[in-house]
Amino acid sequence: MNVSEKYKDIRMQTIAFCKHLHIEDYALQVVQFASPPKWHLAHTTWFFETFILIPNSKNYTPFNPDFNFLFNSYYNNVGDRILQASRGNMSRPSTDEIYKYREYVDAKMQELLAEVSDNTIIDLVILGLNHEQQHQELLITDVKYMLGHNPLFPVFNKEYNLVSDVNSHTGTIKINGGVYEIGYQGNDFCYDNELGVHKVYVDDFEINNYLVTNSDFIEFMEAGGYADFNLWLDDGWSWVNANNINSPMYWHKIEGDWHCYSLSGLQKIDPLAVLCHINYYEANAFAEWKGMRLPTEFEWEIAAQQLDWGKRWEWTNSAYLAYPRFKKENGAVGEYNGKFMSNRMVLRGASVATSKDHSRTTYRNFFNPTERWQYTGIRLAK
Amino acid sequence: MNVSEKYKDIRMQTIAFCKHLHIEDYALQVVQFASPPKWHLAHTTWFFETFILIPNSKNYTPFNPDFNFLFNSYYNNVGDRILQASRGNMSRPSTDEIYKYREYVDAKMQELLAEVSDNTIIDLVILGLNHEQQHQELLITDVKYMLGHNPLFPVFNKEYNLVSDVNSHTGTIKINGGVYEIGYQGNDFCYDNELGVHKVYVDDFEINNYLVTNSDFIEFMEAGGYADFNLWLDDGWSWVNANNINSPMYWHKIEGDWHCYSLSGLQKIDPLAVLCHINYYEANAFAEWKGMRLPTEFEWEIAAQQLDWGKRWEWTNSAYLAYPRFKKENGAVGEYNGKFMSNRMVLRGASVATSKDHSRTTYRNFFNPTERWQYTGIRLAK
Amino acid sequence: MNVSEKYKDIRMQTIAFCKHLHIEDYALQVVQFASPPKWHLAHTTWFFETFILIPNSKNYTPFNPDFNFLFNSYYNNVGDRILQASRGNMSRPSTDEIYKYREYVDAKMQELLAEVSDNTIIDLVILGLNHEQQHQELLITDVKYMLGHNPLFPVFNKEYNLVSDVNSHTGTIKINGGVYEIGYQGNDFCYDNELGVHKVYVDDFEINNYLVTNSDFIEFMEAGGYADFNLWLDDGWSWVNANNINSPMYWHKIEGDWHCYSLSGLQKIDPLAVLCHINYYEANAFAEWKGMRLPTEFEWEIAAQQLDWGKRWEWTNSAYLAYPRFKKENGAVGEYNGKFMSNRMVLRGASVATSKDHSRTTYRNFFNPTERWQYTGIRLAK
Amino acid sequence: MNVSEKYKDIRMQTIAFCKHLHIEDYALQVVQFASPPKWHLAHTTWFFETFILIPNSKNYTPFNPDFNFLFNSYYNNVGDRILQASRGNMSRPSTDEIYKYREYVDAKMQELLAEVSDNTIIDLVILGLNHEQQHQELLITDVKYMLGHNPLFPVFNKEYNLVSDVNSHTGTIKINGGVYEIGYQGNDFCYDNELGVHKVYVDDFEINNYLVTNSDFIEFMEAGGYADFNLWLDDGWSWVNANNINSPMYWHKIEGDWHCYSLSGLQKIDPLAVLCHINYYEANAFAEWKGMRLPTEFEWEIAAQQLDWGKRWEWTNSAYLAYPRFKKENGAVGEYNGKFMSNRMVLRGASVATSKDHSRTTYRNFFNPTERWQYTGIRLAK
Repeated sequence: MNVSEKYKDIRMQTIAFCKHLHIEDYALQVVQFASPPKWHLAHTTWFFETFILIPNSKNYTPFNPDFNFLFNSYYNNVGDRILQASRGNMSRPSTDEIYKYREYVDAKMQELLAEVSDNTIIDLVILGLNHEQQHQELLITDVKYMLGHNPLFPVFNKEYNLVSDVNSHTGTIKINGGVYEIGYQGNDFCYDNELGVHKVYVDDFEINNYLVTNSDFIEFMEAGGYADFNLWLDDGWSWVNANNINSPMYWHKIEGDWHCYSLSGLQKIDPLAVLCHINYYEANAFAEWKGMRLPTEFEWEIAAQQLDWGKRWEWTNSAYLAYPRFKKENGAVGEYNGKFMSNRMVLRGASVATSKDHSRTTYRNFFNPTERWQYTGIRLAK
Repeated sequence: MNVSEKYKDIRMQTIAFCKHLHIEDYALQVVQFASPPKWHLAHTTWFFETFILIPNSKNYTPFNPDFNFLFNSYYNNVGDRILQASRGNMSRPSTDEIYKYREYVDAKMQELLAEVSDNTIIDLVILGLNHEQQHQELLITDVKYMLGHNPLFPVFNKEYNLVSDVNSHTGTIKINGGVYEIGYQGNDFCYDNELGVHKVYVDDFEINNYLVTNSDFIEFMEAGGYADFNLWLDDGWSWVNANNINSPMYWHKIEGDWHCYSLSGLQKIDPLAVLCHINYYEANAFAEWKGMRLPTEFEWEIAAQQLDWGKRWEWTNSAYLAYPRFKKENGAVGEYNGKFMSNRMVLRGASVATSKDHSRTTYRNFFNPTERWQYTGIRLAK
Repeated sequence: MNVSEKYKDIRMQTIAFCKHLHIEDYALQVVQFASPPKWHLAHTTWFFETFILIPNSKNYTPFNPDFNFLFNSYYNNVGDRILQASRGNMSRPSTDEIYKYREYVDAKMQELLAEVSDNTIIDLVILGLNHEQQHQELLITDVKYMLGHNPLFPVFNKEYNLVSDVNSHTGTIKINGGVYEIGYQGNDFCYDNELGVHKVYVDDFEINNYLVTNSDFIEFMEAGGYADFNLWLDDGWSWVNANNINSPMYWHKIEGDWHCYSLSGLQKIDPLAVLCHINYYEANAFAEWKGMRLPTEFEWEIAAQQLDWGKRWEWTNSAYLAYPRFKKENGAVGEYNGKFMSNRMVLRGASVATSKDHSRTTYRNFFNPTERWQYTGIRLAK
Repeated sequence: MNVSEKYKDIRMQTIAFCKHLHIEDYALQVVQFASPPKWHLAHTTWFFETFILIPNSKNYTPFNPDFNFLFNSYYNNVGDRILQASRGNMSRPSTDEIYKYREYVDAKMQELLAEVSDNTIIDLVILGLNHEQQHQELLITDVKYMLGHNPLFPVFNKEYNLVSDVNSHTGTIKINGGVYEIGYQGNDFCYDNELGVHKVYVDDFEINNYLVTNSDFIEFMEAGGYADFNLWLDDGWSWVNANNINSPMYWHKIEGDWHCYSLSGLQKIDPLAVLCHINYYEANAFAEWKGMRLPTEFEWEIAAQQLDWGKRWEWTNSAYLAYPRFKKENGAVGEYNGKFMSNRMVLRGASVATSKDHSRTTYRNFFNPTERWQYTGIRLAK
């Protein structure tokens, strides 16, 4: 696929997911960290308009001059923006108008792509498409959060379940200690935070070739895992108590049986399915209870060729920090990754909600240790 | 109009207002004290279903058993309910389904009204219709709040302005002191909090036959009214400072001129128009600055026959408390008014947003002294 | 007693109470609404220095120029001040220095009083002494709060109990409806909020000549009073649930028996003693449960000559608002009472912690409806 | 010095510092993260009582059975405890009684030390003494916080300044990349978090042999460093804006000159002195502005033999996480370090407030990235 086809394909996938939404779903923001679907649709479009069309397309007229303010996410370099917590205050512009905005920008992008040869621009388009893929995953998780917190537990789509996959491997992989190279070495797209190939020394380690299952975690729960402070990090123990946590997100005990909400509706927990929607503190406490630990992001990357991965984002025991030769790019695009390098933990792998072609063994995902609404899981090491 | 026609008429007015909404507007709650339009539509319908159809209509099947939980507002007697702050978390049930709910209940209500003769039931229907009228006004003020806090300041309807009316009278009315009767004495509908006719003694007083205008209030602002603590109640002064208040709600200074948002869009302040959207603290501070005071609710009621009123809800200097012989009714309907009798001030009159036939000189409206999103104004006395 | 003797006497009473404190007690503020003892000692002294010595005493040198900032309570007219919530941040100036400050000001006051004849000044001194008496009561309640929330429940003074007094009367007093005069009519000291004698009309009413006892309230508790929302005002019900309230303040159930903390230590509840430390919401809910109500402040004042009162501050069903001819004085002294006239309820009577000679039938005390740390009780009417 | 002498010596140093306190200072807690001096005195004593005397000293009678509850800091394994935020609510037990508690425990400890030969016990005593030294530093920083936030800026001790030291070296140290060993390898005391010697690979790097000075930082401030979001981590930028930060902690601009509070009182900033009281975000932003970076904790440890260090705790760019072979000990002592391994950054070195003999090149200190009340500074690397 050339860039123009790739553009069409990826942009179309965003729409394909949204066709299952009701109009009322588009504007809603039920929690600060999740954005309304309408906002995702507009913001990804704003990215192409702001970073590609306006600087490079002659005579380009912005679709609506207010949209820069409305749909800038966090790029301080591109002017004022509304706070993340207020994204759900906006019933207008209407969903219709956002779809028109997408069509308008898509048409202009196709014109531009038909004639462009400058690699800098093409690289920015590729970045924009990767950015769109990240928002495709957030769209899924944000919609799940909204519907999963509606007391009616509505079905989004009978065919989207995303929490039923099982391990296809067993056993443990042993890796010898030594100096290894870390970081992206290919020629295709990667994020700036993966660059700067560098050496790390790791000790001998063993890593499971499978993820923790629901039944494993139910064992932990039944053994009183949520009540035993010795298993928890101090901040994690505060989180458990402040929020009365006693199960993974989306789990509900109904007439004695654990159920969970999925995009296909409320369903009984499948004990064999891979555990989902736990945060770093829960992952860490579970590992502690097992007498094992989470792998570091380096161990994960070193073992990755031999691992069965891709069902869940896997919490690692590495804080999200810069690689030794990390250099943020100038200007707004440089705000992409670097500024989040505190108070976040690295997740490796990819989830069933991750867009196709949007994963690789060097990919560094990162979230606050409290967050659970992504499709997250646990792999153990020792 | 008989009750059946009245029912149709009032229920239809709710829909008439809503036809100017976009679908995305229906589910949004942008502040805790305002409810989404969809909720108002459903809750007023739930009232008829719960208090009239279920107990009185043979073989009535509730439209959807979940709706009692979803659309109960604050009636603890009728079971669990979702908290007011979470009413905006619900994109589902869809607006379509809510309209079907209304049609379903309306049809059943017409069947019932065709044959009912029991006055207790008819009285409850009348209460339900008055309840619907109260929500019609809240629909207007809640929609205004949502659109007025959208950075695009969208026009709701070119023909709804509601903040441009001017005083049609001047002068001051003098009333002699003495013992007067207070409370509703007619035979038509009134709320329980107006009942219990009782005597009060008032001193001689004078009350303006006009309301404070925008230009009056701009004078106060320009004289530093918002910065002079001597004019403010202690709680009011805290409110001003905690929220950096320096103008009425919906006012914006644009290129040197004061503008305000109305349902017909952003417009220049008309100096002659009657002031709107101020809270009790602002009303009190303004009166203090003028060397006058707000009337008590008793003074207002005594003078009402001679007053020009009906443009704004007028803050009085009376706390909302029970009349001497106030008796709340048993059961859920008894929760209507009595339980709010602390920390609220009485407003008398009616506003341009109040439904027709939903005002009388004994009507007691009440809000927290901080609230400004109703169409509130100031009348001075001494 | 002349003013000079009265000054000595009242100032000495403040010290007499404090001699039971430990030095560590003096600087502590454990909750926002209670001030540290040291602050009370200094602030009452600051009142005499600021309002009497500085303007009237030739060549007076302020003890320490920082003290105006440190010990101004809420008088915006007298310059900047530290926020009430930060009064406990100050270990310095030391307690010793505060006692020296008192001695210094007392000596200067005696010099002034020896020669002053200006009634305006003498009236201000009287106001200052009444102010000191108010702080004497606050000292008691604030110290009780601090020690009563110390997990050791320390004894302040074996001889101060203050919660064991019992009713000495029974029966109910009947008052005929009619027009009565309200407000202070004597020639001695009273606060500005009692002035403006005016008429009110009241209906026939009956009022108990005794207060609710501990055993009465235990009945309410055992009948599920704290769990029955029908008894509570809406704001009260929120307060009960947000704070998990199930008994009066300072009550603890120990091995099956209710105990309460008093200044003489933890002790078993005496069922016959008069109930103490409940707020307006609890008073109101109890009255509702009994099928009675709280008296208004007017009913209380009208009946007062015939009532046995003075054990507890009694919650009335009147909001704290201005009397018809209320006029606040100019300047800082005018900030004394008027600015608190919103969101507070009136209490009438006096408590066992009230200073001698600091009560009268027209006295209007006022607190937020949530507050319980004063010696408050319930009298019922109907 | 043998253990018995060491015990006397270290315990005495705690008292030596406290002799400059006023009694009112002992009970005060002005911010959640700082504890009252009295609490430090008691808690360090509680450590010896709970972990050494009670299990090992025959016939030992606890000084006061309530003290376990009062002075347990965060050891969930040793029973209930009062929350850190409430440590300042306690005027009782009195300071006197706490000193008696120390004397009582010290006497019993000397008896025990005279006869003990069990190394496990002696190791625990050594741990207790290191624990005491940590609290000695916290005593200093907590007292500074309390007095530095008193509007009078009281002098604690004319001879304690602690912020005037200057760099004694210049130049930059170059280290060749390669595999190095990290972690404590000696036979003396160290904490569990330093154990598990392991290899790390580091690239070539350069590290300054001096710390950032006040004048360096003033340059940053004058260049608009606090206002340029490009320099800040996202969480840091939120912190700057939420708290209106524009200088290091304890700095005040008075009549055009920067001053800072020290334990010897308010003083003019010495431009040559080493910068103090900045948090991780400020350290990171400053490094960014200089086009350099903070060293990792491994780089710091590798370079340490050649570095001039010990004036300030130095923020590193390493998150506080477990070393590969970290194993927490069983029981309460195991709660010491491991449970804080999230959301904290490592500081290396030692400060002028650190107790003698309480530093080494492998020591890992850790704080939240927002905290500034420790004696923290900046060393740059590249």
